[in-house]
Order: sequence, then structure tokens, then C-alpha cells
Amino acid sequence: MALNKHRESFLYTKMTELDLIENIDFAKGNGLVTTIAQDAATGEVLMVAYMNAESFQRTLQTKEAVYWSRSRQCLWHKGDQSGNIQKVKSIYLDCDGDAILLKIEQVGNAACHTGKRSCFYRQIDDTGIRDVGAQVFDPKEVYTK
Amino acid sequence: MALNKHRESFLYTKMTELDLIENIDFAKGNGLVTTIAQDAATGEVLMVAYMNAESFQRTLQTKEAVYWSRSRQCLWHKGDQSGNIQKVKSIYLDCDGDAILLKIEQVGNAACHTGKRSCFYRQIDDTGIRDVGAQVFDPKEVYTK
Repeated sequence: MALNKHRESFLYTKMTELDLIENIDFAKGNGLVTTIAQDAATGEVLMVAYMNAESFQRTLQTKEAVYWSRSRQCLWHKGDQSGNIQKVKSIYLDCDGDAILLKIEQVGNAACHTGKRSCFYRQIDDTGIRDVGAQVFDPKEVYTK
Repeated sequence: MALNKHRESFLYTKMTELDLIENIDFAKGNGLVTTIAQDAATGEVLMVAYMNAESFQRTLQTKEAVYWSRSRQCLWHKGDQSGNIQKVKSIYLDCDGDAILLKIEQVGNAACHTGKRSCFYRQIDDTGIRDVGAQVFDPKEVYTK
């Protein structure tokens, strides 16, 4: 089962969680589902990331966004390094079960590793690409490791 | 190059479009980028779909959302059958170039094939899954083929 591909030490603590997780189609994306983080207060779409079953379970339990980092191949508690964690206010599953929407409170007001408020800071039209994002922090000061 | 995998008859009509498309990382997703459709007026996240380079180009040119259907393996002009097209108001690219956000006007007020306003109509919490979506149309009446 493809669900196993991206997991570390997946533990079920409650039957209801198992039931919930069985409603999510991790198999279609080789163990991962696309996850959108949207500001719960303003509606801004802040970022897109991925979750495996364990990161979903941890998000559900801790009410903080935990993703699966495709580049580092590990669980990724968003904000671990920057302090800009995402407090999860509500969770939604799409019609075919392969995408998740998190409505969150973005601590530090910036979701992007560039220090921008949103990762979607580049606007495209038929004349080109413009940076329309709000710069919240200087990544050189925040990511010192 | 993975970009070729999902294309039909990719034609560049303007140099600026080629420049734009080269800023989008289609290769990471084997020719596809994740695309979010958000209601431009209300901020509601309506659906997640995928675009190849040609569907992106057509979206840019026509100002209507054109996706790549992974299940049918063809270009998918959203709303072709239901009439519920998506008029594109603005387009955003994320920091690493592998996800696109469309701010749209949803004709017919429903984005989901189930007749719901949004595909994200199932709310999850640690007690279960609840249908919280607004039913806009009856899919049996709309999809008659």
C-alpha cells in the first residue's frame, strides 16, 4: 500500500483517527496528499505543501501544521526553525479525498521561507511576472543555520 | 524533459509566454503543477487541479481556467459540460514555481462535480467528518451524458 512509502513510525492512538485517515486517499499521490494553508481570518492562500498519513495525524492531534517535506524526506513541523508555526483552526477534505485545506493562524504573519507573507507573491499576466508580496522578515536573519 | 509528458500540441504564440512558462517548474511534477482555484470575491478555496504547460498557456490566453485531467489524460476546460466555467481574474506563482493560484469568478456558483459550491465541503475534526458544503445544483440534472 502506497501509504507506507512516506511514513516514519505511524501509530494509531484512537480508532476514530484510523477511520478518518481511511477517508483520505493517500494512495493516489504515492502516500502524499496536497495540502493548502489558508489564513483563517483573511482568506489569503499562504502556501501549498504535502502531508503523509503521519503528518496528517500529528496535525490533527497537535492543531499545528505538520507536513511531509518532499525535498528533505522527513516530517516537517512548519515553523520549527523560524518560529512561524501554523495554528490549525479547521481542516477540510476535498470531494475525491486527495487534497486537504487547512484554515490556519499564521504565527509571525509570514508563511514563506523568503520572508514573504504568502508563497504566492508572484503575479503573472500576459506581460510578465511581478512581485506583489509583502516582505515580513529578512530570511538571512531568521534562517541562521 | 518531463514537460513534454503531458502536452498535446504545445504552440508558443508570443515570446513573452515562453519566458513566463520557463519560470514555472513543470518538471518537478512530471509536467504538471498543482493549481488552486480561489473565488476572487469571497476568498473561498473552491478546488485543486493540475496544469501542464499547454493548459497554463490556454488559461493565460483565454482568461478561463483550463486544467490537465489526470484521470482522463486530456486538456480540461473547466465547465465545458456543466457550463460552470471559471473566469480568471488573476494568476499567482509560488516561491519555488511548482504551484499556481488562480483567483476566479465561478460561473454557476459551484466548482465541484458533486454540485457543491466548493470541493472542500467535508470538515474533519478529531470526532469525525461532517458535510458542511452548500449544495448548488443536482449533478444528475447537470451531467446527463
